[in-house]
Amino acid sequence: MDAQQREILDTAHEMADAAGSAILPFFRQPDLSEDNKLAGGYDPVTEADRAAEQAMRDILARRRPQDAILGEEFGATPGSSGLTWVLDPIDGTRGFVSGTPTWGVLIGLSDSARVHMGMIDQPYIGERFWGGFGTAQMRGPRGQSQLTVSARTTLSEAVLFTTFPEVGTPEDRVAFEAVSACVKLTRYGMDCYAYALLASGQVDLVVECGLNSYDIQGPIGVIEAAGGVVTDWQGGPALQGGRVLAAANRSLHKAALDILGAMSKM
Amino acid sequence: MDAQQREILDTAHEMADAAGSAILPFFRQPDLSEDNKLAGGYDPVTEADRAAEQAMRDILARRRPQDAILGEEFGATPGSSGLTWVLDPIDGTRGFVSGTPTWGVLIGLSDSARVHMGMIDQPYIGERFWGGFGTAQMRGPRGQSQLTVSARTTLSEAVLFTTFPEVGTPEDRVAFEAVSACVKLTRYGMDCYAYALLASGQVDLVVECGLNSYDIQGPIGVIEAAGGVVTDWQGGPALQGGRVLAAANRSLHKAALDILGAMSKM
Repeated sequence: MDAQQREILDTAHEMADAAGSAILPFFRQPDLSEDNKLAGGYDPVTEADRAAEQAMRDILARRRPQDAILGEEFGATPGSSGLTWVLDPIDGTRGFVSGTPTWGVLIGLSDSARVHMGMIDQPYIGERFWGGFGTAQMRGPRGQSQLTVSARTTLSEAVLFTTFPEVGTPEDRVAFEAVSACVKLTRYGMDCYAYALLASGQVDLVVECGLNSYDIQGPIGVIEAAGGVVTDWQGGPALQGGRVLAAANRSLHKAALDILGAMSKM
Repeated sequence: MDAQQREILDTAHEMADAAGSAILPFFRQPDLSEDNKLAGGYDPVTEADRAAEQAMRDILARRRPQDAILGEEFGATPGSSGLTWVLDPIDGTRGFVSGTPTWGVLIGLSDSARVHMGMIDQPYIGERFWGGFGTAQMRGPRGQSQLTVSARTTLSEAVLFTTFPEVGTPEDRVAFEAVSACVKLTRYGMDCYAYALLASGQVDLVVECGLNSYDIQGPIGVIEAAGGVVTDWQGGPALQGGRVLAAANRSLHKAALDILGAMSKM
């Protein structure tokens, strides 16, 4: 890891620390204020979201003013370096307002082609997962350790996580359920924490849809660094979000992609 | 709280400490051994389960030899006091084997009529929820605090948690979905942690089915002490498990029960 890469990782850690400090006072508070960003949808945004993104932007303004920023709350800020920080201060707001520690602070750093570094932070549990520049690590209640994806290569032994049935069109759901029917165990409701578990080797597949770039770039950085594969449902880049398939390895990825591709053509 | 009640609570804390110490070395280990207890079903039992129940039984043999025990792993042990300790060393084994910190150690103390004390412990996060003898408390990463259920009284503002779609008959699922259609938000996959969130005022309803007595007696003790209501889907006692409705208050309980009762009669 060279000096610039070290500086980038240090910056990301400082950002995650600041975001966690901004968010935690709001977590599980009964007077949590909520907006409804999407008419008809349930997408609560809290003051915590805004405070955390601002805290991360303040750090970037000081340490990395040359880089662009794309944040869920405050949109795009141009830069000159060719690198963009992609920020979701609280991914999993439905989990956040329900009190589940499944939400996370997501930080990605990408150029137009790929994600170079990603971080998923869950400050209530005190767990952080990060990857890039040749390293993939987590630290949590039991200390720091290396992230490695699982070695399971067949769908019949795989554990699948998803936010279905909460998200997706009926067609998306049919495709998801075709994969789900082939795996050993499907579980729900883990928000971005599912990607951290995939990078940790606990979970083998994550199938999602309706994602934004800031929902997936942090996870892509962590998962790829841990040895996993993240694409859209056609096998193309997932940097822009949409329908996403994350897998522990190429064998599982191909097996799931074959099913999603076949179902999507129907 | 009298001296016997204090002794019971102290015993429960010692048991939860011992269970957590027995379980944590197995959590997220790649070589976790699994059995299939139910032919055709997915109910992994680990060495951790057995070690934790044995550790709790050893403490009871020393401190409370007069009480009966009913444990998931080692069954029933008779007693002379009229009180039974009801133990599930790892509730949420599907979560456990997927690495999610949604499983818990469940401890209940009941006579034939009701639960006197309950405890839900999540040792990876370091959170413990307990109630009975006039107290309802939790301690976790941010210290100790009192448990109080939420004040939301209408379904349209309620947050519902469940293990559906993973469990239940088609008829059960229809009834569950009729409740789900009336609430603000339905979330999945939290295992016994959902009951802890209900007691904490974060969640308003939990609807489950297919439970055993050891899955629900610990949660009943915590939730009732925090002000909530737990019954079966007919409004009767839930001590023996089966189909369970847990609600933050009587208004929400009645509203959900009316729907479940109407659907069950169809």
